[in-house]
Amino acid sequence: MSSLDEFALIRRLTEGKQSAAFQQASGVDIGIGDDAAVAYLAPGCQLVMTCDTMTESVHFQPHTMRDSDVGYKAMAAAISDIAAMGAIPRYALVALSIPQETPQHKLEAVYQGLYECANRWSVVIVGGDTTSCIGGLTLTVTVIGEVPDGQALLRSTAKTGDVVFATGELGCSAAGLEYLLQQALPSEQWPQAGKDSAEARLIAAHCRPEPQIEMGQLLQQSKVCGALNDVSDGLASEAWEIAQASGVGIDLIEDRIPIADELMAYAEKAEKDPLHYILYGGEDYKLIGTMQAEHAIEMQIKFREAGHTLYIIGYVNAEDSGVRLVQSSGYVVPIDKKGYNHFRKD
Amino acid sequence: MSSLDEFALIRRLTEGKQSAAFQQASGVDIGIGDDAAVAYLAPGCQLVMTCDTMTESVHFQPHTMRDSDVGYKAMAAAISDIAAMGAIPRYALVALSIPQETPQHKLEAVYQGLYECANRWSVVIVGGDTTSCIGGLTLTVTVIGEVPDGQALLRSTAKTGDVVFATGELGCSAAGLEYLLQQALPSEQWPQAGKDSAEARLIAAHCRPEPQIEMGQLLQQSKVCGALNDVSDGLASEAWEIAQASGVGIDLIEDRIPIADELMAYAEKAEKDPLHYILYGGEDYKLIGTMQAEHAIEMQIKFREAGHTLYIIGYVNAEDSGVRLVQSSGYVVPIDKKGYNHFRKD
Repeated sequence: MSSLDEFALIRRLTEGKQSAAFQQASGVDIGIGDDAAVAYLAPGCQLVMTCDTMTESVHFQPHTMRDSDVGYKAMAAAISDIAAMGAIPRYALVALSIPQETPQHKLEAVYQGLYECANRWSVVIVGGDTTSCIGGLTLTVTVIGEVPDGQALLRSTAKTGDVVFATGELGCSAAGLEYLLQQALPSEQWPQAGKDSAEARLIAAHCRPEPQIEMGQLLQQSKVCGALNDVSDGLASEAWEIAQASGVGIDLIEDRIPIADELMAYAEKAEKDPLHYILYGGEDYKLIGTMQAEHAIEMQIKFREAGHTLYIIGYVNAEDSGVRLVQSSGYVVPIDKKGYNHFRKD
Repeated sequence: MSSLDEFALIRRLTEGKQSAAFQQASGVDIGIGDDAAVAYLAPGCQLVMTCDTMTESVHFQPHTMRDSDVGYKAMAAAISDIAAMGAIPRYALVALSIPQETPQHKLEAVYQGLYECANRWSVVIVGGDTTSCIGGLTLTVTVIGEVPDGQALLRSTAKTGDVVFATGELGCSAAGLEYLLQQALPSEQWPQAGKDSAEARLIAAHCRPEPQIEMGQLLQQSKVCGALNDVSDGLASEAWEIAQASGVGIDLIEDRIPIADELMAYAEKAEKDPLHYILYGGEDYKLIGTMQAEHAIEMQIKFREAGHTLYIIGYVNAEDSGVRLVQSSGYVVPIDKKGYNHFRKD
């Protein structure tokens, strides 16, 4: 890397990765290469802005993520925040801090992952910053999106009587991470889809999460959605956020929470409760939220027609009861807020 | 820090720092606290987007910048990129990677600097991400601004016959950094304004640069500006960027390049050519650019009326001659592109 200056490096990592035609069709006027990027927002839309940082040793290690996964997931996590507003992602900026002696093929793999994810959700990478650093590789991805004026879905708008939903199965990412940490194998020796498909699916959930843009759109357009969050920190933590921001209580019904086959299989082997991963694992990037109960079935049908599944997993009550679990036994137990938290050491 | 989770930390660092009234007047609909921020862009305007990273040991050390300067300068550098497009900065996202054991008062000082700079240029901090990390403290500041449709000032639009201008004196930041590195003193022992005013001014140029938003606006509104860049990497490098992007040659006239009194005094003591700092120092964040020659005096008057100075320092020629210096002696010498570059080890 020392032989390349910053401009040459950026050019090499970004040039030709997204066609001029795609950029123009996406509203980009000035892309990578000037002091800042310039682009159009759709008329009648508000700006939606978020950023997400992933840093070596904290969010990833060589035996928990391939280099291309690092780029893919950093982009996916930021796009997921846009999905959680019911908005459409449009543009991204990538800030990369690179330790000295990082081989160039590693950077190329990170960028390959960034572009793979960006292309999949039609996001244009319009700029960024690249610098050397001490410590670990650090990526901050900013994503800018748009939502029709006043139509963003917030976490503070859950209402008593709403049902609670999830747009996918949860806990797989945390189980995948646990598996990878225990195995501590180089990625060439990871389980392959087909051969060890349960583990491979858990790994994919951890390394290649799928931001729920289309589901967020269905919810935003329905006008019956109350609150919305993406699951970056586990179901317990996200449900607590909605409950606190909205000033309501949330009851989750154990029997209604979906458990992926691969998570069930893994939890059985590990002799753990799959619910542990679902409630307190993180980085699934599915959406959870609330909606008017009388529209739940109609929305489930809409989701199915679009090839997705909407799981109704609980309801909103008026009590100041935080988040509770209605167990299969009928007992109702409080759920601790504890989720995945980079700052907590317990 | 270990006793605070991320939400509590963010709340402590950001809550109440910018009033609800200011945020609302600035077009913010949803600020810090949801998955993403939501805000309005002025009608008829394009989005302008940039980000800038500053990381410990590479961009700052305890003896070259106070904690509050780190925040201030990270924000200033990103705002400067918006100025360099002739645009107005509106919203910022702050991504902070924090080494374990960082004392909370350090983070509070960094945020105090971030807000000081943001408030000065009426930028609302609408979100961000906070994570722990190994290695040094790293900040990525994203700034989102607006510019009337199609009116952004680019670096590729210099024309033969244009004059080259600078909106301020250059080289002071590099001299300030050199001084701080040589002294290697804790900030309490740095020269104070008044007592050692020359050194104090060089330090201020390094630690507290002033993005040239107002100057960028004057240039954008004038409709006579050709190309525009901010000086983050030294005059030589920025002039080369304009020359290459525009396919023109640039001649800088030695006698016309302004030299700040404090730089002159410092260079004399250091027995160096002040031009060395101007051409190859970085991080001044003044603007350089080109404009139609026949409007230069009229623009100089407009600048003076606004309390600023526009220096005419050269001209654009049609030759493929890169950047040259017309020396006081009359000799014309080529200027190397070499500027401040975090990836070059020479």
